[in-house]
Amino acid sequence: MTERVVLAYSGGLDTSVAIPYLAEQTGAEVIAVAIDVGQGGEDLAAIRQRALDCGATESEVIDAREEFAADYCVPAMRANALYMDRYPLVSALSRPLIVKHLVAAAKKYGGTIVSHGCTGKGNDQVRFEAGLGALAPELKVIAPARDFAWTRDKAIGYAEEKGLPIDVTHKSPYSIDQNLWGRAVETGFLEDIWNAPIEDVYAYTANPAEPRDPDHVVITFDAGVPVAIDGETVTPYQAIVELNRRAGAQGVGRLDMVEDRLVGIKSREVYEAPGAIALITAHQELENVTVERDVARFKKGVDQRWGELVYDGLWFSPLRHALDAFIDDTQTHVSGEVRLALHGGRAVVTGRRSEASLYDFGLATYDTGDTFDQSLAKGFVQLWGLPSKLASARDARLGGSDR
Amino acid sequence: MTERVVLAYSGGLDTSVAIPYLAEQTGAEVIAVAIDVGQGGEDLAAIRQRALDCGATESEVIDAREEFAADYCVPAMRANALYMDRYPLVSALSRPLIVKHLVAAAKKYGGTIVSHGCTGKGNDQVRFEAGLGALAPELKVIAPARDFAWTRDKAIGYAEEKGLPIDVTHKSPYSIDQNLWGRAVETGFLEDIWNAPIEDVYAYTANPAEPRDPDHVVITFDAGVPVAIDGETVTPYQAIVELNRRAGAQGVGRLDMVEDRLVGIKSREVYEAPGAIALITAHQELENVTVERDVARFKKGVDQRWGELVYDGLWFSPLRHALDAFIDDTQTHVSGEVRLALHGGRAVVTGRRSEASLYDFGLATYDTGDTFDQSLAKGFVQLWGLPSKLASARDARLGGSDR
Amino acid sequence: MTERVVLAYSGGLDTSVAIPYLAEQTGAEVIAVAIDVGQGGEDLAAIRQRALDCGATESEVIDAREEFAADYCVPAMRANALYMDRYPLVSALSRPLIVKHLVAAAKKYGGTIVSHGCTGKGNDQVRFEAGLGALAPELKVIAPARDFAWTRDKAIGYAEEKGLPIDVTHKSPYSIDQNLWGRAVETGFLEDIWNAPIEDVYAYTANPAEPRDPDHVVITFDAGVPVAIDGETVTPYQAIVELNRRAGAQGVGRLDMVEDRLVGIKSREVYEAPGAIALITAHQELENVTVERDVARFKKGVDQRWGELVYDGLWFSPLRHALDAFIDDTQTHVSGEVRLALHGGRAVVTGRRSEASLYDFGLATYDTGDTFDQSLAKGFVQLWGLPSKLASARDARLGGSDR
Amino acid sequence: MTERVVLAYSGGLDTSVAIPYLAEQTGAEVIAVAIDVGQGGEDLAAIRQRALDCGATESEVIDAREEFAADYCVPAMRANALYMDRYPLVSALSRPLIVKHLVAAAKKYGGTIVSHGCTGKGNDQVRFEAGLGALAPELKVIAPARDFAWTRDKAIGYAEEKGLPIDVTHKSPYSIDQNLWGRAVETGFLEDIWNAPIEDVYAYTANPAEPRDPDHVVITFDAGVPVAIDGETVTPYQAIVELNRRAGAQGVGRLDMVEDRLVGIKSREVYEAPGAIALITAHQELENVTVERDVARFKKGVDQRWGELVYDGLWFSPLRHALDAFIDDTQTHVSGEVRLALHGGRAVVTGRRSEASLYDFGLATYDTGDTFDQSLAKGFVQLWGLPSKLASARDARLGGSDR
Repeated sequence: MTERVVLAYSGGLDTSVAIPYLAEQTGAEVIAVAIDVGQGGEDLAAIRQRALDCGATESEVIDAREEFAADYCVPAMRANALYMDRYPLVSALSRPLIVKHLVAAAKKYGGTIVSHGCTGKGNDQVRFEAGLGALAPELKVIAPARDFAWTRDKAIGYAEEKGLPIDVTHKSPYSIDQNLWGRAVETGFLEDIWNAPIEDVYAYTANPAEPRDPDHVVITFDAGVPVAIDGETVTPYQAIVELNRRAGAQGVGRLDMVEDRLVGIKSREVYEAPGAIALITAHQELENVTVERDVARFKKGVDQRWGELVYDGLWFSPLRHALDAFIDDTQTHVSGEVRLALHGGRAVVTGRRSEASLYDFGLATYDTGDTFDQSLAKGFVQLWGLPSKLASARDARLGGSDR
Repeated sequence: MTERVVLAYSGGLDTSVAIPYLAEQTGAEVIAVAIDVGQGGEDLAAIRQRALDCGATESEVIDAREEFAADYCVPAMRANALYMDRYPLVSALSRPLIVKHLVAAAKKYGGTIVSHGCTGKGNDQVRFEAGLGALAPELKVIAPARDFAWTRDKAIGYAEEKGLPIDVTHKSPYSIDQNLWGRAVETGFLEDIWNAPIEDVYAYTANPAEPRDPDHVVITFDAGVPVAIDGETVTPYQAIVELNRRAGAQGVGRLDMVEDRLVGIKSREVYEAPGAIALITAHQELENVTVERDVARFKKGVDQRWGELVYDGLWFSPLRHALDAFIDDTQTHVSGEVRLALHGGRAVVTGRRSEASLYDFGLATYDTGDTFDQSLAKGFVQLWGLPSKLASARDARLGGSDR
Repeated sequence: MTERVVLAYSGGLDTSVAIPYLAEQTGAEVIAVAIDVGQGGEDLAAIRQRALDCGATESEVIDAREEFAADYCVPAMRANALYMDRYPLVSALSRPLIVKHLVAAAKKYGGTIVSHGCTGKGNDQVRFEAGLGALAPELKVIAPARDFAWTRDKAIGYAEEKGLPIDVTHKSPYSIDQNLWGRAVETGFLEDIWNAPIEDVYAYTANPAEPRDPDHVVITFDAGVPVAIDGETVTPYQAIVELNRRAGAQGVGRLDMVEDRLVGIKSREVYEAPGAIALITAHQELENVTVERDVARFKKGVDQRWGELVYDGLWFSPLRHALDAFIDDTQTHVSGEVRLALHGGRAVVTGRRSEASLYDFGLATYDTGDTFDQSLAKGFVQLWGLPSKLASARDARLGGSDR
Repeated sequence: MTERVVLAYSGGLDTSVAIPYLAEQTGAEVIAVAIDVGQGGEDLAAIRQRALDCGATESEVIDAREEFAADYCVPAMRANALYMDRYPLVSALSRPLIVKHLVAAAKKYGGTIVSHGCTGKGNDQVRFEAGLGALAPELKVIAPARDFAWTRDKAIGYAEEKGLPIDVTHKSPYSIDQNLWGRAVETGFLEDIWNAPIEDVYAYTANPAEPRDPDHVVITFDAGVPVAIDGETVTPYQAIVELNRRAGAQGVGRLDMVEDRLVGIKSREVYEAPGAIALITAHQELENVTVERDVARFKKGVDQRWGELVYDGLWFSPLRHALDAFIDDTQTHVSGEVRLALHGGRAVVTGRRSEASLYDFGLATYDTGDTFDQSLAKGFVQLWGLPSKLASARDARLGGSDR
């Protein structure tokens, strides 16, 4: 029986060329699978047809947008996941979902090989292959760009030679990956890290410097999940779409950074993630109101590790699962409303309210109604400072300290 | 011999009233000490005189602005210190410096008691008294607001009764603390956390929504210390003043949050810290470029703990000292230039360059000149994912897992 | 209606004297509640009667041994809880359980006050009162030893004066607290930290230096819970009793340390915890076999925080709950058998086996049957070391580094 | 000019065979370098000669024992470095030192290639090559066992064919690595993790079960460095030798564990490290006495990371350097004496004293002389427990919580 390769298909040059090339190299039939994670752009029916036109034996398009929002973006938001305090894990979140569907397709179509278009110097190869190793270690993996040292020029030549129905004349100067949670742009003149991005780089966000009126939005959370916007019930997917639209229109969520890749190098990345940044901003503040202090302090380390793990391609690791158990527990009472002002590139919290609030007006106020017993403070302060006091006295006794 | 109280004097109602009141209560002479940490506002000579007019035996004004910038603000910036990811520790940083000068004044003037104006439900009492316990455990402490349950109305009544030269008619609806590193505003209508701040609350920052041209600034760092602005050599103090001015003019650095106080309650705080936010933003990105990945990841936990310690009043703790040893080591190569665009309330990095950069164009580029050996990736990916792969296989073998 | 005080009653001098004293001081009726957490010693019926003889209105003895084992000791073992890497939290674990039963008794008997015998310089007062604050903030608390500066001599005088049925002639030179999980001894000549403990101090453990034959025991765990000993099914309580006996007979589990108390001082403590040490030793090694590496590394920090929280009196904190959610998740596959050799004060793992093992003979062996593909290593090693390599090259380029 | 290979030479079969084999494969001259890190065993002059007899162009033996003790073992002890709470990093510590000397030899002899005998599934290849990448990225690396799939049988055949002066008849059933800091044994019947080690496995330690008298030893530390034993001044090297002898004679320091290798697999390891375990035990307790609580708690995470980094081959990483800056700062006052009882496989602290002690008898004692002000505790307890209390009240108010 002929072997079958399941190819993660995007419709673009590289993976289109991979269809005949993989068939040629492996003698296998190619099953093209395109996963809709909200990347927008081209019509998916057209993408499906193109794979067939390039020689795919089967071609399938899978709408995974609600699943992506609920099972990948929302957990990231609950972890306030910002790699290096900036990057909301746009591509890193979609890879495990794509892997899951590739594995399902391999089962469905009898595939024994999986193929993806990643290079050998990025993070995505790790995310694909660590995921595949966890879900379906029996599948072989081929990454033409990496394993056959495939380049863009080679791909164009091959496409022309084979007469593939791909427009090779449009060349973006950038390498772009985008989905519901955001958009990543790299390469080109951005590789000089002293260069500022230009407007041309952006697609999800309007120029924040242009004058416009602010937009005020109220997001309702229930146990750490966004459930309504301005009082209208929404699914997570709808929440993200709506906030991408409204925050994007105000220029919110542009990010420009030098980033540590898992493979050991630093790269320059520009991102746009209007909905993600708006949601994380609101969620963090609702946690400030509803999560107890020691939990909040410890959760920072959990959140950081969560983001690193997912960035590093270990979505399907037991540690991610265990961290999520911690995070789930902390979200029980992260319910309530946050009002954001979206304007001029900023998403700013201007109000928060919650039945589950730990903010206690009586204890906090300096006005009439103060219920805090200040006489307790003296003893607290003394014992709180005691270890440092003893250490300072010791240092003074022994001299020699510059503290 | 008459005992002497060294009073941390601000020139305001509470500490002015405290002068005769402390004398009355303790029979001691009062030494008023005002520390200039860049709080601006009133002329310090006037403040000095007011203390004498209220009955102080001695009154001294100490200019600690350069010291505050170099020894307190810069270390905070090197720790990217943002308590709860937001608050740059404005008041928390000035307290230990004030404590240091109070202790010096006690030595100079023969004081045996120290007095401060903090209440019993805030963080500042802890910062004062933990600091005093560490530096001069032999000094007694009196905090009239807390220990004698002093209120504003009582203070006004007392001031009028004694004919003190204080204007009691101006009453800010807010409680304000400000210094070089920022400005904190609380109480009043802000105690309802659903209320948005109004423009009236702000003094260090212009309205970010107003139209104006962006301001581009280049900050030069040497080993984690800001040393030049737009090519002009500056002291840390000058750097902060300049960035307060320029970032403030663009509305940068407004913060509004619900915060976990050390005494166990949540409070609502509004801050302005234009220079601090601009500097920390630039410094973080320069770290992204010059600090190795594992150091960067570990430093996040160190930075968080540093911020919590200082927030919690433990500046003079051995742990802060040891964390600073770690941080100092990491800053050796945090040298170079960062270009910021200041505009519309945002401080955005648009360029960075450094002799000490770990960003390697050859390794990063996808263009001509690529020096990264992609063939290494396959082995890396396999071993990187191996533990998760083995765990997943185990889980699959045993069934029962939903991973 | 007369108020009622629920007293945590031990049967000893201090809490016996507290019965009439509390009645006198508060005018309330005293309800004595003794909780059996496996402290052994005196007959509980006798203790119950003594309370009545001292004037208690009601007296109740509650057998909480199985509950203590299952809900407090087992979670501690799953967290490998050793405060400062040594102390298995003996008293710290029993306090929240006692609090829970005191609160239940207050409900049952209409109590509005709770009383305990702790002093004001130990940890236990915090564990009692933080627990009471969490479970029943409406209850008042009286701690005679602390609040009325009660001393042993005062207690004896009072007992004699009132003719209480307590033997005041026996005075242990030590302060002792013991339960199922272990035994704590302090004060006396141990307060000189250069003094070694003498045999006299110990009660749960035989002298490890005496000659005897080793005892080999096989402990079976299911999802992180001990379920059989040498093949015999046991409850957690039975497991601990059996291991206290067998490990204690071999002198296992003696601990002697200087410890950081929550109230800010260091104290010298001697502990015996034969069953706890044996169980934790076995559990840790079974984790080594069944828990994935990244989970294991992260769990160390979770375990440490768990131990500190419980030591610090915060059993009923949301953070303990969330950490337990993490730990629960990690224990799913901590199932299998560990063989311990108990001998000469040592509990040493000599074998482990598990259906859920992640130890893979094929990957580990250097013999026939090796399935590890060594060719993967080269790429792994290169990329693993790349960030350090780049940093070293940078340091070398800039000179000035001593690395 | 002929190229030169610097070979890390042990005198054993594998590296002896590598001499002619490397010459053959590369056409280069082989420089054999043996580093004395206290591995004992064979005379080093004989080893030096054997390399020449096998065809080495140059052969050098370097005595690095004092350097190893002072610059590698002592820092490990200051970090209380026990990987997975057990393994004192025996081989992991020697590798970077060997690397350093190989690089020096390459410079001295004009070598352009470095060769080591590690396989492709262990940690040591990473330690060698990450170290070489950091110190001398220009050097090529050859690992015959890994790169040419060299096996023992192949090596024996080759040795016989070439008539190399190596005794190939003695075959230990184990793979052994040993140095001053300890001894590691693996493979053979130990690969079945249910098998207990037999006495035959051990060489540094006597059988702990045999009867003998205890040995009491007093170790003096100065700023975290062992400087005297029983009052006699020693170098770090002498301290470790002496404690290996005395603790080894009492059977101290045997370890048996399943361990997570960096390359992603679990392996079974047996170690002996009598001196290391004795020193770390004493050092930890002296830290308990002299290090402030918050520092001690944070240092646990630093120590863990230090051990992982060094285990993982990243000795020459900037993070290790920065962690050492933290640790150095904490050791300033880790000075004093610790008395250990060595007996029956146990190293037990029986006394500690220090000029720098933070143990304060007056604060700790429950006897006459108590200086602790218990009245401070009430306020402390209330505020300490306040966040949990508020969270519990919230949970109760909202129902639905099982806490």
